Amino acid sequence: MYITQHTDYALRALIYLGTNDDRLVTIQEIAERFDVSRNHLMKVVNALIRAGFVEGVRGKGGGLRLARAPREIGVGDVLRQMEPGMDLVECFADGCQCILDPSCRLKVALSDALAAFLKVLDGKTLADLLGKSEHAILKFHPLPG
Amino acid sequence: MYITQHTDYALRALIYLGTNDDRLVTIQEIAERFDVSRNHLMKVVNALIRAGFVEGVRGKGGGLRLARAPREIGVGDVLRQMEPGMDLVECFADGCQCILDPSCRLKVALSDALAAFLKVLDGKTLADLLGKSEHAILKFHPLPG
Repeated sequence: MYITQHTDYALRALIYLGTNDDRLVTIQEIAERFDVSRNHLMKVVNALIRAGFVEGVRGKGGGLRLARAPREIGVGDVLRQMEPGMDLVECFADGCQCILDPSCRLKVALSDALAAFLKVLDGKTLADLLGKSEHAILKFHPLPG
Repeated sequence: MYITQHTDYALRALIYLGTNDDRLVTIQEIAERFDVSRNHLMKVVNALIRAGFVEGVRGKGGGLRLARAPREIGVGDVLRQMEPGMDLVECFADGCQCILDPSCRLKVALSDALAAFLKVLDGKTLADLLGKSEHAILKFHPLPG
Protein backbone atom coordinates (compact mmCIF):
# COMPACT_ATOMS: atom_id res chain seq x y z
CA MET A 1 0.00 0.00 0.00
CA TYR A 2 1.46 3.26 -1.07
CA ILE A 3 1.07 6.98 -0.91
CA THR A 4 2.81 8.57 -3.88
CA GLN A 5 6.25 10.12 -3.43
CA HIS A 6 4.64 13.36 -4.58
CA THR A 7 2.43 13.46 -1.47
CA ASP A 8 5.22 12.22 0.77
CA TYR A 9 7.45 15.13 -0.33
CA ALA A 10 4.53 17.56 -0.07
CA LEU A 11 3.97 16.61 3.57
CA ARG A 12 7.67 16.83 4.37
CA ALA A 13 8.00 20.21 2.65
CA LEU A 14 5.07 21.51 4.72
CA ILE A 15 6.66 20.23 7.92
CA TYR A 16 9.93 21.89 6.94
CA LEU A 17 8.23 25.21 6.17
CA GLY A 18 6.19 25.00 9.35
CA THR A 19 9.30 24.42 11.42
CA ASN A 20 11.21 27.25 9.73
CA ASP A 21 8.37 29.73 9.95
CA ASP A 22 10.52 32.71 10.87
CA ARG A 23 12.02 33.10 7.40
CA LEU A 24 11.58 32.39 3.71
CA VAL A 25 12.90 29.02 2.56
CA THR A 26 14.15 28.26 -0.95
CA ILE A 27 13.27 25.17 -2.97
CA GLN A 28 17.00 24.56 -3.23
CA GLU A 29 17.29 24.36 0.55
CA ILE A 30 14.42 21.89 0.93
CA ALA A 31 15.80 19.79 -1.93
CA GLU A 32 19.21 19.65 -0.27
CA ARG A 33 17.83 18.97 3.18
CA PHE A 34 15.75 16.03 1.99
CA ASP A 35 18.21 14.98 -0.70
CA VAL A 36 15.60 14.97 -3.45
CA SER A 37 15.78 16.27 -7.00
CA ARG A 38 15.12 19.99 -7.31
CA ASN A 39 12.98 19.39 -10.41
CA HIS A 40 10.76 16.88 -8.66
CA LEU A 41 10.40 19.16 -5.65
CA MET A 42 9.52 22.09 -7.91
CA LYS A 43 6.46 20.17 -9.14
CA VAL A 44 5.48 19.34 -5.57
CA VAL A 45 5.86 22.95 -4.46
CA ASN A 46 3.86 24.22 -7.44
CA ALA A 47 1.06 21.85 -6.49
CA LEU A 48 1.22 23.08 -2.87
CA ILE A 49 1.01 26.69 -4.10
CA ARG A 50 -1.93 25.91 -6.41
CA ALA A 51 -3.74 24.20 -3.53
CA GLY A 52 -3.22 27.26 -1.34
CA PHE A 53 -1.01 25.63 1.29
CA VAL A 54 2.18 27.51 0.38
CA GLU A 55 2.99 30.90 -1.06
CA GLY A 56 6.04 32.00 -2.95
CA VAL A 57 7.71 35.39 -2.61
CA ARG A 58 9.54 36.34 -5.80
CA GLY A 59 12.74 38.28 -6.28
CA LYS A 60 16.04 38.49 -4.50
CA GLY A 61 15.83 37.10 -1.01
CA GLY A 62 12.54 35.49 -2.00
CA GLY A 63 11.40 32.01 -1.13
CA LEU A 64 8.55 29.97 0.22
CA ARG A 65 6.42 30.11 3.32
CA LEU A 66 3.17 28.58 4.50
CA ALA A 67 0.12 30.37 3.15
CA ARG A 68 -1.93 29.51 6.24
CA ALA A 69 -1.29 28.81 9.89
CA PRO A 70 -0.27 25.17 10.50
CA ARG A 71 -3.47 24.52 12.48
CA GLU A 72 -5.43 25.49 9.37
CA ILE A 73 -3.74 22.91 7.16
CA GLY A 74 -5.52 19.59 7.57
CA VAL A 75 -3.39 16.54 6.87
CA GLY A 76 -6.31 14.72 5.25
CA ASP A 77 -6.87 17.74 3.05
CA VAL A 78 -3.23 17.74 1.92
CA LEU A 79 -3.55 14.06 1.02
CA ARG A 80 -6.75 14.61 -0.95
CA GLN A 81 -5.27 17.56 -2.85
CA MET A 82 -1.87 16.03 -3.54
CA GLU A 83 -2.66 12.42 -4.40
CA PRO A 84 -3.29 12.10 -8.13
CA GLY A 85 -6.05 9.66 -7.36
CA MET A 86 -7.74 8.02 -4.42
CA ASP A 87 -8.42 5.00 -6.59
CA LEU A 88 -7.19 2.27 -4.28
CA VAL A 89 -7.85 -0.33 -6.93
CA GLU A 90 -8.76 -0.28 -10.60
CA CYS A 91 -12.50 -0.44 -9.97
CA PHE A 92 -12.53 2.92 -8.16
CA ALA A 93 -11.77 4.66 -11.44
CA ASP A 94 -14.14 5.45 -14.28
CA GLY A 95 -14.40 2.94 -17.09
CA CYS A 96 -13.75 -0.11 -14.94
CA GLN A 97 -14.30 -3.33 -16.86
CA CYS A 98 -14.30 -5.73 -13.92
CA ILE A 99 -17.02 -8.34 -14.20
CA LEU A 100 -17.74 -8.07 -10.48
CA ASP A 101 -18.31 -4.34 -10.61
CA PRO A 102 -22.11 -4.03 -10.75
CA SER A 103 -22.58 -5.45 -7.29
CA CYS A 104 -19.12 -5.84 -5.82
CA ARG A 105 -18.91 -5.49 -2.08
CA LEU A 106 -15.13 -5.29 -2.15
CA LYS A 107 -15.38 -1.78 -3.49
CA VAL A 108 -17.68 -0.82 -0.62
CA ALA A 109 -15.37 -2.42 1.96
CA LEU A 110 -12.32 -0.63 0.54
CA SER A 111 -14.20 2.67 0.36
CA ASP A 112 -15.17 2.32 4.03
CA ALA A 113 -11.56 1.54 4.93
CA LEU A 114 -10.29 4.54 2.97
CA ALA A 115 -12.84 6.77 4.73
CA ALA A 116 -11.55 5.53 8.10
CA PHE A 117 -7.97 6.22 6.95
CA LEU A 118 -8.80 9.79 5.94
CA LYS A 119 -10.89 10.40 9.05
CA VAL A 120 -7.81 9.86 11.22
CA LEU A 121 -5.82 12.31 9.08
CA ASP A 122 -8.72 14.80 9.05
CA GLY A 123 -8.31 14.89 12.82
CA LYS A 124 -4.74 16.13 12.43
CA THR A 125 -3.37 19.44 11.23
CA LEU A 126 0.14 20.45 10.27
CA ALA A 127 0.41 21.94 13.77
CA ASP A 128 0.08 18.41 15.19
CA LEU A 129 2.94 17.25 12.96
CA LEU A 130 5.28 19.97 14.16
CA GLY A 131 6.28 20.30 17.78
CA LYS A 132 8.79 17.58 18.35
CA SER A 133 10.22 17.89 14.88
CA GLU A 134 11.61 21.26 15.98
CA HIS A 135 14.10 19.23 17.96
CA ALA A 136 15.01 17.33 14.83
CA ILE A 137 15.57 20.60 13.04
CA LEU A 138 17.92 21.71 15.80
CA LYS A 139 19.90 18.57 15.16
CA PHE A 140 20.27 19.21 11.43
CA HIS A 141 23.85 19.30 10.28
CA PRO A 142 24.67 22.65 8.68
CA LEU A 143 24.71 22.50 4.91
CA PRO A 144 28.17 22.65 3.42
CA GLY A 145 29.38 25.96 1.96
CA MET B 1 -3.08 6.09 -2.87
CA TYR B 2 -2.79 2.60 -4.16
CA ILE B 3 -3.14 -1.03 -3.32
CA THR B 4 -0.94 -3.10 -5.61
CA GLN B 5 -2.50 -4.85 -8.59
CA HIS B 6 -1.22 -8.07 -7.03
CA THR B 7 -3.54 -7.63 -4.04
CA ASP B 8 -6.39 -6.38 -6.20
CA TYR B 9 -6.24 -9.55 -8.31
CA ALA B 10 -5.85 -11.70 -5.19
CA LEU B 11 -9.07 -10.31 -3.73
CA ARG B 12 -10.93 -10.73 -7.01
CA ALA B 13 -9.68 -14.29 -7.43
CA LEU B 14 -10.89 -15.12 -3.91
CA ILE B 15 -14.30 -13.61 -4.66
CA TYR B 16 -14.48 -15.63 -7.87
CA LEU B 17 -13.51 -18.87 -6.11
CA GLY B 18 -15.94 -18.13 -3.28
CA THR B 19 -18.75 -17.58 -5.74
CA ASN B 20 -17.97 -20.73 -7.71
CA ASP B 21 -17.55 -22.93 -4.66
CA ASP B 22 -19.31 -25.94 -6.13
CA ARG B 23 -16.48 -26.83 -8.51
CA LEU B 24 -12.76 -26.52 -9.21
CA VAL B 25 -11.78 -23.42 -11.17
CA THR B 26 -8.73 -23.16 -13.43
CA ILE B 27 -6.29 -20.26 -13.51
CA GLN B 28 -7.09 -19.96 -17.21
CA GLU B 29 -10.76 -19.38 -16.42
CA ILE B 30 -10.05 -16.66 -13.85
CA ALA B 31 -7.55 -15.01 -16.22
CA GLU B 32 -10.13 -14.96 -19.01
CA ARG B 33 -12.95 -13.79 -16.77
CA PHE B 34 -10.96 -10.84 -15.46
CA ASP B 35 -9.05 -10.30 -18.68
CA VAL B 36 -5.65 -10.39 -16.98
CA SER B 37 -2.43 -12.11 -18.01
CA ARG B 38 -2.25 -15.77 -17.06
CA ASN B 39 1.38 -15.36 -15.97
CA HIS B 40 0.57 -12.51 -13.65
CA LEU B 41 -2.38 -14.38 -12.20
CA MET B 42 -0.21 -17.47 -11.67
CA LYS B 43 2.02 -15.46 -9.31
CA VAL B 44 -1.03 -14.16 -7.47
CA VAL B 45 -2.50 -17.65 -7.11
CA ASN B 46 0.82 -19.08 -5.91
CA ALA B 47 0.92 -16.40 -3.22
CA LEU B 48 -2.67 -17.23 -2.23
CA ILE B 49 -1.74 -20.91 -1.98
CA ARG B 50 1.39 -20.17 0.09
CA ALA B 51 -0.68 -18.00 2.44
CA GLY B 52 -3.18 -20.84 2.90
CA PHE B 53 -6.20 -19.11 1.36
CA VAL B 54 -6.42 -21.31 -1.73
CA GLU B 55 -5.59 -24.90 -2.54
CA GLY B 56 -4.80 -26.47 -5.86
CA VAL B 57 -5.90 -29.91 -6.99
CA ARG B 58 -3.47 -31.35 -9.52
CA GLY B 59 -4.14 -33.57 -12.49
CA LYS B 60 -6.79 -33.83 -15.16
CA GLY B 61 -9.94 -32.04 -14.07
CA GLY B 62 -7.90 -30.30 -11.39
CA GLY B 63 -8.08 -26.68 -10.46
CA LEU B 64 -8.35 -24.27 -7.58
CA ARG B 65 -10.70 -23.89 -4.65
CA LEU B 66 -10.74 -22.00 -1.39
CA ALA B 67 -8.71 -23.69 1.34
CA ARG B 68 -10.97 -22.31 4.08
CA ALA B 69 -14.59 -21.27 4.42
CA PRO B 70 -15.16 -17.68 3.22
CA ARG B 71 -16.05 -16.55 6.75
CA GLU B 72 -12.59 -17.69 7.85
CA ILE B 73 -10.77 -15.53 5.33
CA GLY B 74 -10.34 -12.04 6.78
CA VAL B 75 -10.03 -9.28 4.21
CA GLY B 76 -7.48 -7.41 6.34
CA ASP B 77 -5.49 -10.61 6.58
CA VAL B 78 -5.47 -11.03 2.79
CA LEU B 79 -4.20 -7.47 2.42
CA ARG B 80 -1.43 -7.97 4.97
CA GLN B 81 -0.32 -11.23 3.35
CA MET B 82 -0.51 -10.06 -0.25
CA GLU B 83 0.82 -6.52 -0.13
CA PRO B 84 4.60 -6.56 -0.62
CA GLY B 85 4.87 -3.80 1.95
CA MET B 86 2.71 -1.71 4.18
CA ASP B 87 5.24 1.11 3.89
CA LEU B 88 2.89 3.95 3.07
CA VAL B 89 5.81 6.29 2.64
CA GLU B 90 9.59 5.91 2.48
CA CYS B 91 10.09 6.47 6.20
CA PHE B 92 8.10 3.34 7.11
CA ALA B 93 10.86 1.19 5.63
CA ASP B 94 14.19 0.31 7.18
CA GLY B 95 17.13 2.50 6.36
CA CYS B 96 15.15 5.70 6.00
CA GLN B 97 17.40 8.71 5.61
CA CYS B 98 14.81 11.41 6.17
CA ILE B 99 16.10 14.19 8.39
CA LEU B 100 12.76 14.44 10.17
CA ASP B 101 12.74 10.76 11.10
CA PRO B 102 13.97 10.78 14.71
CA SER B 103 10.92 12.58 16.01
CA CYS B 104 8.55 12.83 13.06
CA ARG B 105 4.89 12.84 13.98
CA LEU B 106 3.82 12.32 10.38
CA LYS B 107 4.88 8.70 10.63
CA VAL B 108 2.75 8.27 13.74
CA ALA B 109 -0.25 9.95 12.09
CA LEU B 110 0.06 7.75 8.99
CA SER B 111 0.51 4.62 11.11
CA ASP B 112 -2.66 5.47 13.02
CA ALA B 113 -4.52 6.04 9.75
CA LEU B 114 -3.27 2.73 8.33
CA ALA B 115 -4.39 0.95 11.50
CA ALA B 116 -7.88 2.44 11.08
CA PHE B 117 -7.90 1.31 7.43
CA LEU B 118 -6.99 -2.26 8.34
CA LYS B 119 -9.40 -2.33 11.29
CA VAL B 120 -12.31 -1.82 8.89
CA LEU B 121 -11.07 -4.65 6.69
CA ASP B 122 -10.40 -6.87 9.72
CA GLY B 123 -14.12 -6.58 10.40
CA LYS B 124 -14.91 -8.15 7.02
CA THR B 125 -14.44 -11.66 5.74
CA LEU B 126 -14.63 -13.05 2.24
CA ALA B 127 -18.18 -14.14 3.14
CA ASP B 128 -19.13 -10.46 3.46
CA LEU B 129 -17.75 -9.80 -0.02
CA LEU B 130 -19.81 -12.54 -1.60
CA GLY B 131 -23.57 -12.47 -1.48
CA LYS B 132 -24.66 -9.95 -4.03
CA SER B 133 -21.82 -10.75 -6.35
CA GLU B 134 -23.53 -14.10 -6.96
CA HIS B 135 -26.02 -12.11 -9.00
CA ALA B 136 -23.17 -10.59 -10.97
CA ILE B 137 -21.85 -14.07 -11.64
CA LEU B 138 -25.23 -15.12 -12.99
CA LYS B 139 -25.01 -12.22 -15.37
CA PHE B 140 -21.62 -13.21 -16.73
CA HIS B 141 -21.57 -13.75 -20.45
CA PRO B 142 -20.53 -17.31 -21.29
CA LEU B 143 -16.95 -17.60 -22.43
CA PRO B 144 -16.61 -18.27 -26.15
CA GLY B 145 -15.81 -21.80 -27.26
